[in-house]
Amino acid sequence: MNFIGCDGDYDSSRIVLFGAPYDCTSSFRPGSRFAPAAIRTDSWGLELYSPYQNRALPKALLHDAGDLELPFGGPEPALGLIEDFCMGVLRDGKLPFMLGGEHLVTLGAVRAIVKKYSNLHILHFDAHADLRDKYLGQSLSHATVMRRCFDLTGTGRIFQFGIRSGDESEFLFSQNRTVMRRFDLMGLGAVMSSLRGVPVYVTIDLDVLDPSLFPGTGAPEAGGVSFTELLSALTSVLRLNVVGADVSELSPPYDQSGCSTAVACKIIREMLIALGS
Amino acid sequence: MNFIGCDGDYDSSRIVLFGAPYDCTSSFRPGSRFAPAAIRTDSWGLELYSPYQNRALPKALLHDAGDLELPFGGPEPALGLIEDFCMGVLRDGKLPFMLGGEHLVTLGAVRAIVKKYSNLHILHFDAHADLRDKYLGQSLSHATVMRRCFDLTGTGRIFQFGIRSGDESEFLFSQNRTVMRRFDLMGLGAVMSSLRGVPVYVTIDLDVLDPSLFPGTGAPEAGGVSFTELLSALTSVLRLNVVGADVSELSPPYDQSGCSTAVACKIIREMLIALGS
Amino acid sequence: MNFIGCDGDYDSSRIVLFGAPYDCTSSFRPGSRFAPAAIRTDSWGLELYSPYQNRALPKALLHDAGDLELPFGGPEPALGLIEDFCMGVLRDGKLPFMLGGEHLVTLGAVRAIVKKYSNLHILHFDAHADLRDKYLGQSLSHATVMRRCFDLTGTGRIFQFGIRSGDESEFLFSQNRTVMRRFDLMGLGAVMSSLRGVPVYVTIDLDVLDPSLFPGTGAPEAGGVSFTELLSALTSVLRLNVVGADVSELSPPYDQSGCSTAVACKIIREMLIALGS
Amino acid sequence: MNFIGCDGDYDSSRIVLFGAPYDCTSSFRPGSRFAPAAIRTDSWGLELYSPYQNRALPKALLHDAGDLELPFGGPEPALGLIEDFCMGVLRDGKLPFMLGGEHLVTLGAVRAIVKKYSNLHILHFDAHADLRDKYLGQSLSHATVMRRCFDLTGTGRIFQFGIRSGDESEFLFSQNRTVMRRFDLMGLGAVMSSLRGVPVYVTIDLDVLDPSLFPGTGAPEAGGVSFTELLSALTSVLRLNVVGADVSELSPPYDQSGCSTAVACKIIREMLIALGS
Amino acid sequence: MNFIGCDGDYDSSRIVLFGAPYDCTSSFRPGSRFAPAAIRTDSWGLELYSPYQNRALPKALLHDAGDLELPFGGPEPALGLIEDFCMGVLRDGKLPFMLGGEHLVTLGAVRAIVKKYSNLHILHFDAHADLRDKYLGQSLSHATVMRRCFDLTGTGRIFQFGIRSGDESEFLFSQNRTVMRRFDLMGLGAVMSSLRGVPVYVTIDLDVLDPSLFPGTGAPEAGGVSFTELLSALTSVLRLNVVGADVSELSPPYDQSGCSTAVACKIIREMLIALGS
Amino acid sequence: MNFIGCDGDYDSSRIVLFGAPYDCTSSFRPGSRFAPAAIRTDSWGLELYSPYQNRALPKALLHDAGDLELPFGGPEPALGLIEDFCMGVLRDGKLPFMLGGEHLVTLGAVRAIVKKYSNLHILHFDAHADLRDKYLGQSLSHATVMRRCFDLTGTGRIFQFGIRSGDESEFLFSQNRTVMRRFDLMGLGAVMSSLRGVPVYVTIDLDVLDPSLFPGTGAPEAGGVSFTELLSALTSVLRLNVVGADVSELSPPYDQSGCSTAVACKIIREMLIALGS
Repeated sequence: MNFIGCDGDYDSSRIVLFGAPYDCTSSFRPGSRFAPAAIRTDSWGLELYSPYQNRALPKALLHDAGDLELPFGGPEPALGLIEDFCMGVLRDGKLPFMLGGEHLVTLGAVRAIVKKYSNLHILHFDAHADLRDKYLGQSLSHATVMRRCFDLTGTGRIFQFGIRSGDESEFLFSQNRTVMRRFDLMGLGAVMSSLRGVPVYVTIDLDVLDPSLFPGTGAPEAGGVSFTELLSALTSVLRLNVVGADVSELSPPYDQSGCSTAVACKIIREMLIALGS
Repeated sequence: MNFIGCDGDYDSSRIVLFGAPYDCTSSFRPGSRFAPAAIRTDSWGLELYSPYQNRALPKALLHDAGDLELPFGGPEPALGLIEDFCMGVLRDGKLPFMLGGEHLVTLGAVRAIVKKYSNLHILHFDAHADLRDKYLGQSLSHATVMRRCFDLTGTGRIFQFGIRSGDESEFLFSQNRTVMRRFDLMGLGAVMSSLRGVPVYVTIDLDVLDPSLFPGTGAPEAGGVSFTELLSALTSVLRLNVVGADVSELSPPYDQSGCSTAVACKIIREMLIALGS
Repeated sequence: MNFIGCDGDYDSSRIVLFGAPYDCTSSFRPGSRFAPAAIRTDSWGLELYSPYQNRALPKALLHDAGDLELPFGGPEPALGLIEDFCMGVLRDGKLPFMLGGEHLVTLGAVRAIVKKYSNLHILHFDAHADLRDKYLGQSLSHATVMRRCFDLTGTGRIFQFGIRSGDESEFLFSQNRTVMRRFDLMGLGAVMSSLRGVPVYVTIDLDVLDPSLFPGTGAPEAGGVSFTELLSALTSVLRLNVVGADVSELSPPYDQSGCSTAVACKIIREMLIALGS
Repeated sequence: MNFIGCDGDYDSSRIVLFGAPYDCTSSFRPGSRFAPAAIRTDSWGLELYSPYQNRALPKALLHDAGDLELPFGGPEPALGLIEDFCMGVLRDGKLPFMLGGEHLVTLGAVRAIVKKYSNLHILHFDAHADLRDKYLGQSLSHATVMRRCFDLTGTGRIFQFGIRSGDESEFLFSQNRTVMRRFDLMGLGAVMSSLRGVPVYVTIDLDVLDPSLFPGTGAPEAGGVSFTELLSALTSVLRLNVVGADVSELSPPYDQSGCSTAVACKIIREMLIALGS
Repeated sequence: MNFIGCDGDYDSSRIVLFGAPYDCTSSFRPGSRFAPAAIRTDSWGLELYSPYQNRALPKALLHDAGDLELPFGGPEPALGLIEDFCMGVLRDGKLPFMLGGEHLVTLGAVRAIVKKYSNLHILHFDAHADLRDKYLGQSLSHATVMRRCFDLTGTGRIFQFGIRSGDESEFLFSQNRTVMRRFDLMGLGAVMSSLRGVPVYVTIDLDVLDPSLFPGTGAPEAGGVSFTELLSALTSVLRLNVVGADVSELSPPYDQSGCSTAVACKIIREMLIALGS
Repeated sequence: MNFIGCDGDYDSSRIVLFGAPYDCTSSFRPGSRFAPAAIRTDSWGLELYSPYQNRALPKALLHDAGDLELPFGGPEPALGLIEDFCMGVLRDGKLPFMLGGEHLVTLGAVRAIVKKYSNLHILHFDAHADLRDKYLGQSLSHATVMRRCFDLTGTGRIFQFGIRSGDESEFLFSQNRTVMRRFDLMGLGAVMSSLRGVPVYVTIDLDVLDPSLFPGTGAPEAGGVSFTELLSALTSVLRLNVVGADVSELSPPYDQSGCSTAVACKIIREMLIALGS
């Protein structure tokens, strides 16, 4: 079962959707491994048409490649498989669009993309800074993922929005190294102006949303942004020169109502419409 | 067990509450058949008094007639029973107030009311346009209900608020045929001015509310209105010449916390107070 | 297992956290007895550092004394044990910080504190007025707790915010007796000015929050305040001369997603940071 | 809404069903207060006819009196109301059939019945001995209820089956005082022979069933009896000279599947058929 | 996503699996529409190999044709689509294996099969007799499905096992018309002897299983058969001349643990292995 | 919070309970990381006394060392920490009793114990053979754990009971290498006779129980053993020369009723009583 509307064949499509069902470094509540399957199934409850953008999913341009088969346990093998897959997609001149899994999967994609685009910039929407150097003794973790991305991009290339949790060292680290907006998405317009033309990767940890709307996630943090705020931000930034994107940290077992999955589906539909325009 | 405060006898009451536990055309997640029972039970957690309207439920004026016994399967028999019941209530000079069930039950009531009030106008609060001509090959469905009502009322009589989902054809259809406000409830004041004096039916698909507050529904759509917005709108419009009303699409099994049912109960209490004033 | 960061020893700590797992007068949905244990366990998903206050939990000053062993059934024995425990804490020059349990546990603490501070003022955040004289024939109940506190403090000493439910008699009673703000937290600044210097007890029934964010509670009332509003209010008022505080009415079994518990944990962290500054 | 088939009027009925929604001494997981309402609602999923007994519910003989309004908090007021109600039923020559609630409600009924039948014998099906003298300092508790009944009936009058949990003192107490069968229902035939003719009260704590079949209860104890074993036992013993009966300790919130409620309904149907024969 | 191991192509396969996600006549708890999708997804938690039969799924012989697109509402259109699909499968000399949906879907398959095999016999495993002539006024319903099949096959052709619920009229009807075994599966051996050689359809309403093991179903009936009993029966009967089979009445939303779906998957695996041997 | 009754200090205790909250190789449904905490909390719902063994928990002999802090991700660091901890316990002449976590944690303990007892024998209760050489490319996994133990103990030292799932290669591997009893626990008596005097490790994957009683596990397999069967087996084998034991694969998030956790607690209580006798 594809994500709704993503039934283009690989060759003719411009965007390649794929799942990365890995959650083995989740420290609090695992379950994001089940997100790609749940998102595909429930996407069929969506309309193809968006009244927000007055446009439907550009069907012929979207290919759903299914899920990668990622081993459980330590992350390096999984990250390697994600990197390899993205390399292929990029080589074919297409845009990889990844459905996590936990947020660490972003590192696999960024490793691939930064090889092609050495001046890659990253737009990061998240409740958590994810800038730790190590977490529970591990350097590869959902809590260190943006620090590892920073190792690849260097200073001034990562723009973080909505951050409302982290230890003190993360906030100190971000000074002069990343652009970080706490709590909300203000200042995004100015950042967008500065990113015109450069290659941009967009990574969305869905826990940037308020847990009232998105309870089905591993580490809920009250005080998040609204659906409308996130939607508005995404439909803007995806008109930049976006070379890859991901959506992560939906954990379906923690929301029996299914609303968190429905929200994720709608965010993804809007992203695909904006990217495909 | 009555809805709280609705223990007037039929003869002396002005408003007749009844349940229409039918959900057989629900295409995504059924369960609204359980709504009337859940609403009655949990209504006892409410106070009779509303600090919003500084007024209590007008007990002697409210009769709870219980649930209709509606057959499962195809909708015509159920719609017929709803229509017949409403005819009786109208004949007795009373106002029918229906608890769905899925939104299709509205058609049964409107069929009855439009016979008595040929210039009926409909105020429609919903996340979905419900204007399809057919859905999965069926002309009677929760996704076609307002189109069928349109068949009865004709152009310019239906006013839709909060609409944020539909296929493109529905939005095109609404042009010059219904008054449709997307996403929110703005413009309601102007509409109310134009409706002064004419008979109005008010139909509320509770999924017009944001799913953060109302996850227990069949087709949750992020980006909805807040409780305060809906409450404020309803307490206004129910002072028009309202001749019937309904509340639909609560699906209790999808919200184990019970909050969706509590929200429905509170909306209904406020509606009954406003109608009874 | 302590609440995270509360591992100071009793003697050197200034604030003494303790649980009061009692919920036997809950009339609608019990379960707040499980709150202290759930709060302690899930608090380990929090960071010690708050980006809101740019400060971490003051570890050496916080002692977690565990839960009182409270008998089930009638409330007097439980209230007596709470009162005794608070007397000890106060005698040792420390501040009691209680985790309920239902809201009635507040009375045990207030009985103790008013003995030491005869001019005690109470700041009360709640969806419900809790000013009934009797409820179901009982004078000791979650629905009468602020009335019983009023019996101890007298007129003009109780300040209520966020109130959006009660029977008519409660709202009438509050006139000229308590300062009550309906629906939201406006006017808190003026109240704070008037409370400078006097001893203040802060009691938070978490159902003051909107149930979208906090579904896991016994009597959810739509139309509540947001997390940011409550957080902002609390970090202000806790800089008054606060001599005791409590947080009540989390009912973990009614929120399978765990988000309600996560919200409670974050509120408590912010309160402890503000109190400890 | 009545329990299915219990729509006889009071005067002509021989058996009076009523609910006792009290659970305030539950020490582990409350929720049995919701049992009578859930049982009535879900009873409508039953057939009136039992293929086990080849007989249908004797409709005209069964009256459902609804629920008593029992105050929360300490148990004495609730027990008093139960006792009073049962006195009335007995005075009218009818048989009281109580739906708990927690098991303590049995004491209210037994207090009434022992006044009329001084040589009352009690058949008790339960996972727990319930023979403590005090529990958490309280002499009235779900864990002391059979001890309190023993205080009323004296030695040799209580017959316990299925018992598989208790503290050591309870098992010692039972020696020479009650007839206790551990783990299963063996020996019931012999007990029945000895009870021919004497007035018997039958009290069923549904946790005597294995929690695989009955997870929705406050204190699940693995190793219980099967549905068939319990059914077979009950349809036998209810042909004795039964003068009252109860069923307790269903806690619907702890079984989201609804199967525990369905089991309770079926047990009650079979009991009513057997009693009415 | 196929059912695990069913990746043969249509032409070379002997058995054609397909889903019939229809549940619109479910009178108590709908949700079986979600069964085929849940079964396919969770089937990947199974091994291909069965230690019970010491044999693996005969992969090349099994084709999964996905789900039929069935309209919601009245059943005739859905039954027609099922009948048509089965006709095609039969015409191609293959065996249809249907995943319901509610039990009524059986009628669509039987209508097709009885055209090809006029002396069709039906083996029916169920908790419910399903022999009503009408149910809530409808002649097509999950509660009438075997009666409608009887209309097609005539007397002496339907063999029912495990029946433990129905109204009295159903049990009377079955006398001299169907072979009915109440409560358990005894006598199956003798029936099998009598069916040697004749064409047999096997229809399994999974609620024949005890609800302790299979709570996720619309109408749970305590006192059912065990997994081992059902497994043993099925691996026997499927060695008869079976010309079609179905499995129905899993309702995944009512078992949050997922065990009911896991049981269904395992039953289906064992059936496919037995059929394919 | 200790497991109930395990409040002996380390030095004087003979048995050391500890938690290993690791589940990162779980391939189907994670969550066993939450088991040790849930088991400790809910153990307080148990009695200290067992009517099965007519003996209470030997309190002074039992020490609860809390949980190891195990990193997420790849298993070797976690296994190393478990091995180190067990080495210390063994060096001090005590018996390690581990609460998983997933079943792979057993390997850490067995690595330690086999160093001290080179002729170690293992009694293994499980639904799954766990004898794969690799699973999803990994040699360390919950599905390979007994194969890795076999690497350490060699042929003829592992005795497996209740096995009802695995791929064909696992069953072939077991021939002449392990003693495997499929489906049930028969033959345990004979095995026990052969193990008299030799050092024995007992490892219990709780999914050996039927999922009707134990739904809260990662890979439920219908057709398991009953509580009574397992209890009877364990109270027997723990009278052998047991030098270590573990209980694994409870996944609390998958059983909202809490019964699975209650079953695990009761099994552990009975094991500790039997070991301590």
